[in-house]
Amino acid sequence: MAERKHNFNAGPGALPRSVLEEVQQDLVDWKGTGMSVMEMSHRTPVYEGILFEARDVIASLYDLPDTHEVLFLQGGASLQFAMVPLNLGAGGAYANTGTWATKALEEARRVGFADEVWSSEKSGFKSVPGVHEVLEVPESATYFHYTSNNTIYGTQYQHRPRVGVPLVCDMSSDFLSRPVDVGAYDLIYAGAQKNAGPSGVTVVIGKKDLLRSFTGEATVPTMLRYATHAKNDSMYNTPNTFGIYVVGLVAKWVRDIGGLAAMHIVNQSKAQALYEALDAHPLVTGHAELASRSLMNVTFRLETPEQEKRLLARAESAGMEGLKGHRSVGGLRASIYNAVPEASVAALVDLIRGFAG
Amino acid sequence: MAERKHNFNAGPGALPRSVLEEVQQDLVDWKGTGMSVMEMSHRTPVYEGILFEARDVIASLYDLPDTHEVLFLQGGASLQFAMVPLNLGAGGAYANTGTWATKALEEARRVGFADEVWSSEKSGFKSVPGVHEVLEVPESATYFHYTSNNTIYGTQYQHRPRVGVPLVCDMSSDFLSRPVDVGAYDLIYAGAQKNAGPSGVTVVIGKKDLLRSFTGEATVPTMLRYATHAKNDSMYNTPNTFGIYVVGLVAKWVRDIGGLAAMHIVNQSKAQALYEALDAHPLVTGHAELASRSLMNVTFRLETPEQEKRLLARAESAGMEGLKGHRSVGGLRASIYNAVPEASVAALVDLIRGFAG
Repeated sequence: MAERKHNFNAGPGALPRSVLEEVQQDLVDWKGTGMSVMEMSHRTPVYEGILFEARDVIASLYDLPDTHEVLFLQGGASLQFAMVPLNLGAGGAYANTGTWATKALEEARRVGFADEVWSSEKSGFKSVPGVHEVLEVPESATYFHYTSNNTIYGTQYQHRPRVGVPLVCDMSSDFLSRPVDVGAYDLIYAGAQKNAGPSGVTVVIGKKDLLRSFTGEATVPTMLRYATHAKNDSMYNTPNTFGIYVVGLVAKWVRDIGGLAAMHIVNQSKAQALYEALDAHPLVTGHAELASRSLMNVTFRLETPEQEKRLLARAESAGMEGLKGHRSVGGLRASIYNAVPEASVAALVDLIRGFAG
Repeated sequence: MAERKHNFNAGPGALPRSVLEEVQQDLVDWKGTGMSVMEMSHRTPVYEGILFEARDVIASLYDLPDTHEVLFLQGGASLQFAMVPLNLGAGGAYANTGTWATKALEEARRVGFADEVWSSEKSGFKSVPGVHEVLEVPESATYFHYTSNNTIYGTQYQHRPRVGVPLVCDMSSDFLSRPVDVGAYDLIYAGAQKNAGPSGVTVVIGKKDLLRSFTGEATVPTMLRYATHAKNDSMYNTPNTFGIYVVGLVAKWVRDIGGLAAMHIVNQSKAQALYEALDAHPLVTGHAELASRSLMNVTFRLETPEQEKRLLARAESAGMEGLKGHRSVGGLRASIYNAVPEASVAALVDLIRGFAG
């Protein structure tokens, strides 16, 4: 086997090696059942056990109150952008903090109407609302929607916005990375492919009342109603059985590390090491404002495109992948999700420290 | 490792052992790239190569004309039930041959309106339209929709219906099982989890013109427009990267067997052996009418529920799984998809021959 790459991909991205090894071990014959997880009917006690365990471990990690439940859907955050307004009603209020927040807002406007109540677009999406900032969300808003971590711009909320309407959050790129008081949210959704598993699984956590009682238009497709999935234990139709299995293994890996608080400490430590190296470097400028920096995606620039190319080339030679910045921001981006080992971050820190231009 | 089960699951179901072994081998480190396929960004040449190869092998198996293309979506056939009318327009004509055909029709009526132009509901869905039967599809219908294989009732079209309007087919449970003149279809869709791979991938084959030009309502969600996916090479958002990889391996396995014509011969041979044993047994009654019998799902009853329980118990002792019939039909069902080995069918034939009640 070749050496493992230092995987800084923005997602899909690194998965824990121990999880991959367990998947590999059990791939053809899961736990002596005589078949692969991929070959199991979802309507069997064995597979239901796998799905329910994945669901319950996630619930346990977040200390989920009885009022809330966990669902596994398909279609990624992009489908949630439509499902949220179709289920919660037109008239949501959106904080626009980057590409995905913009898409969520646009989709809400496509299927109904929605308000942009905050935006950092004019300053290049370098920030999210401040901890003490009062968001002007009208009482009439059906919900407030925000994006807790902005993968492309490298910004992240370090607090929960206080608003007087139902709270909805796209946590795609920092799900399972830190403790969250999920009881304060009406709805949370996350594509699994950053911190929680492979792509093709969307985790939804929401209030049971909200998920189970559909009050939208009669014409909303069956598959786009949360109630369809909530009332059928995420198995109204065949779910992504294998993906959910891997999500469950990743959740157990987080649990075994010590849970979300322990995971958060590791993530803070990795991000701190990297930001310190970047801040100390004379050629580097960070993209995000200090108070809005993400622990998940670290975005920065060098003084010239040539320097950036040289750094990227050296990174590639050192076995690092995924460091090129998104085209809408330029520069470089290191995605340091849960499963990116501290050794990978240390290798990147060394590379940056030794880079003279 | 325990012995492999004889897997007669209706889906997800059996996958080729050689495919599972290749997935296992490459799970942690795909072809020396230093990462799992699950960890690859979909925006990299390596992963794009995997997706494009899967797409191209399927296209090649079906000898796809230049007018058509292959997409990989999420959400299964259940989401296609809504996408078809939302993209092709209200006013489709549906042949109702069982549970899934009914759901397709109901969903078309939910998001618009649709006509049922044929139904075998009154006779317990024991048949599909005959080869020489003329279907009364109005010229004004926006399309004609049928379900080529009915997983639950064990019926299958052995011909392509001739109608004067655009032809749409749900091929979920016989996709990749036999040659199809795809050029005659405007749209084909299939959940992968029967013959083509793991669950969580929907394969769509359609006319490029139709897929790429959206003419529906402005309020249709972005993710529910074929054009969104067609114009972005199935990567508008993060697809089910790992699932598509496995679908590609399964398609190559079919190619290596000799393609769809060779696969069809194997499937005919397996089904013939099983139907012969059932027809010869004094206690057995088949569910499907002779001319409508499925090569994929074989449904039958014994004379009493007690006999059925005893046969199921013996099957379980013999390492067979998934033989209990769907609750809406009762009795037993053997799903003998592409990847169910001839040896598994032979074992089931032996069991039936030796069953005295």
